[in-house]
Amino acid sequence: MELNNEISNEQEELKAFRKTLLSFWQYEEFAIREHYQPRYDKWMSLSDHQKALLPNDYLYNLDQIKSKIHSNAEFYKDAVLSTAETLGFDLNYLNDWEMPSTSDMNKTCSILVQVYREFSAACQEERNILLSRIQALLNDIGQTDDKLTILVPGVGIGRLIVDLCILAGSTATVISNEYSLHMLTLSMFLLNGNLDVNQYTIYPFIHSFSHWDMKSNQLKGYSIPDIDISSQNQSRGGLNMEMRMGSFADCFGPNVGIQESSQYTVTPDMRLKRAEVESSIDIVITNFFIDTGFNILDYMETITHALKPGGHWVNFGPLLYHFENDANQETVYETNPYTNNREIAKPNTPLKGLELATMEILDIATTKLNYKIKLLEQGIPSGYGKSESLIHIPGYLCNYWVIQLQE
Amino acid sequence: MELNNEISNEQEELKAFRKTLLSFWQYEEFAIREHYQPRYDKWMSLSDHQKALLPNDYLYNLDQIKSKIHSNAEFYKDAVLSTAETLGFDLNYLNDWEMPSTSDMNKTCSILVQVYREFSAACQEERNILLSRIQALLNDIGQTDDKLTILVPGVGIGRLIVDLCILAGSTATVISNEYSLHMLTLSMFLLNGNLDVNQYTIYPFIHSFSHWDMKSNQLKGYSIPDIDISSQNQSRGGLNMEMRMGSFADCFGPNVGIQESSQYTVTPDMRLKRAEVESSIDIVITNFFIDTGFNILDYMETITHALKPGGHWVNFGPLLYHFENDANQETVYETNPYTNNREIAKPNTPLKGLELATMEILDIATTKLNYKIKLLEQGIPSGYGKSESLIHIPGYLCNYWVIQLQE
Repeated sequence: MELNNEISNEQEELKAFRKTLLSFWQYEEFAIREHYQPRYDKWMSLSDHQKALLPNDYLYNLDQIKSKIHSNAEFYKDAVLSTAETLGFDLNYLNDWEMPSTSDMNKTCSILVQVYREFSAACQEERNILLSRIQALLNDIGQTDDKLTILVPGVGIGRLIVDLCILAGSTATVISNEYSLHMLTLSMFLLNGNLDVNQYTIYPFIHSFSHWDMKSNQLKGYSIPDIDISSQNQSRGGLNMEMRMGSFADCFGPNVGIQESSQYTVTPDMRLKRAEVESSIDIVITNFFIDTGFNILDYMETITHALKPGGHWVNFGPLLYHFENDANQETVYETNPYTNNREIAKPNTPLKGLELATMEILDIATTKLNYKIKLLEQGIPSGYGKSESLIHIPGYLCNYWVIQLQE
Repeated sequence: MELNNEISNEQEELKAFRKTLLSFWQYEEFAIREHYQPRYDKWMSLSDHQKALLPNDYLYNLDQIKSKIHSNAEFYKDAVLSTAETLGFDLNYLNDWEMPSTSDMNKTCSILVQVYREFSAACQEERNILLSRIQALLNDIGQTDDKLTILVPGVGIGRLIVDLCILAGSTATVISNEYSLHMLTLSMFLLNGNLDVNQYTIYPFIHSFSHWDMKSNQLKGYSIPDIDISSQNQSRGGLNMEMRMGSFADCFGPNVGIQESSQYTVTPDMRLKRAEVESSIDIVITNFFIDTGFNILDYMETITHALKPGGHWVNFGPLLYHFENDANQETVYETNPYTNNREIAKPNTPLKGLELATMEILDIATTKLNYKIKLLEQGIPSGYGKSESLIHIPGYLCNYWVIQLQE
């Protein structure tokens, strides 16, 4: 995987990366304080009478939470050591790095479910919901004279790009981007860290105390990774994949039509990179992605800018708009494309507020952006790992569509 | 419905009730500000180019949000007028009442889904998931010499007690309690307000912008109530039901074994009421309830205190612990039952931290509290209204169990 740093201010970017590494480094202390300690304190607060009511293994299971947090921390420490080496950070100066926020720290807990989802054998069936559909699409498209170029925005830890390389063989190049440094850090470790199959055991569910049938299922460990990336790389003479850092619209969007914002910068460098990507992609795959941003139209315009005429947009996921309840605001700007001058500033633009329904998205795509619907499925159930132990945990109901940009 | 005010400090209670009524009164202004306005501002912030991309009915649908908020407010204003009259409040002094909190205001938005769930015909099928099972249990128990007494803690707006009175006919008395003044306010209006069938149309989903296939489904109205309570009352010579205000453990718990807290008071009055309830109940039905408190053991001890030997505990619902992520703390006390003196104070007791798994609850019930399991179902899907328009909205996976207290 080649990592292209698209961020103009490299020093700021490295500082943010160090803060992210520090959050993983501090995970154990944070998880103990937030998830173990209040439960121990709660137990301590009970009367002797109620303590005696609890199951005999109650304290043992509580202690297991602590010990599994420690195991997760072992995985994270190796990830930090590996990524710090890649990025040339000296861990001796760790105490001088900027402190992570509570939000950064919470991500170190929640992202373990993402690792489990992408890199455990238990979730193969769930990954197949999308992969089997993409396989059918590739069969449908058939052999082309040129290599296929596939773009996967917001790829998370990156398993999908590996699976796509394997699925499409040497006939495709897979490009992706990721905005979250937490995702990128683990991606660097899992894709480039030369990990053995099942080298680590992680405990993704120990921070969630609802919906369990048995504590043993909450405490269950999962081996990762279930795939040997380096031998896949060797046997295939290198996987044709490339990862870009930054927001989707910034990396791949059009130079006209999107307003300048925290997600889209107007610099000569970015303008050039965006111009290069125009009409260069055969398939864009948005997987649990289109509901993640402040402005879904920016995403749709970016997809349309990047696709070749005749190219396909494949979408899978629910419409769970991440910012639906976010009260924050930002300033967006309309910028003169000739002078690069900001001509209109719109302060107090809510991050939330543009939550389109499925049929609205498809209406825009077909009536305004020149797509034709080839396939639409709605209400496809997809949990976070369909293993038997999670029968109580509600999942998502997903859309799957394939639409084609007309020539 | 008879309303017994169990709260010692009546003035405080009336003050809290006025604050709750005021929150319903201010719903329209709040919902416009929180849910409509940011979406209008977001639309305003778009470039003309992106405004033109949106579906032709985009602004019309946005305006409909505002108009549906107004319709919901009409329902609430009638509820406030009716409840204020019942409680003897003079609405001319409304501006002097204590201002509701943001949390109070958010409840006025979310509780509409509860009204829809309990009092619309669209959710009859969903209500039947539990009702059909209770019918089977009543058939199984068969005729008894005495009238059955059924206790339903945390009954919400109260539809279940009406359905139980109809189901069991004149052979049962149904007792319930509710802690939330928002629930109680709407309960007083819907159960005692002499409403016509389908007198109101409410729009429960207009505050939720995720998971929609079409905006028309978000904007859908539902007629309420789907039942004529007053004629049910007349034709049956009065429904045998009684509603108590307060927390479950406070109203129905044992006088020994539960620690004094915000949910459990040690006064001679409450001690007497709790003593009266001992071994008086044939069936306790917890419906979406056991995951709502700070201490599930208090709930279990309360159920056990209230049940007759041979009585049944029926439970339905997920294990979505409401306080799992709540960082607040309270002080609990061990109180000498003879002197009423607080002997041990435990400050800084987390509200969260006692989230038992299904099998732990049943282990405690069978090995420590003398129950026998008669029936256990797990993973029963239950949404918030199984209508076709909600195919994208994920629901809950529920437990159903019937366990019997041994003689």
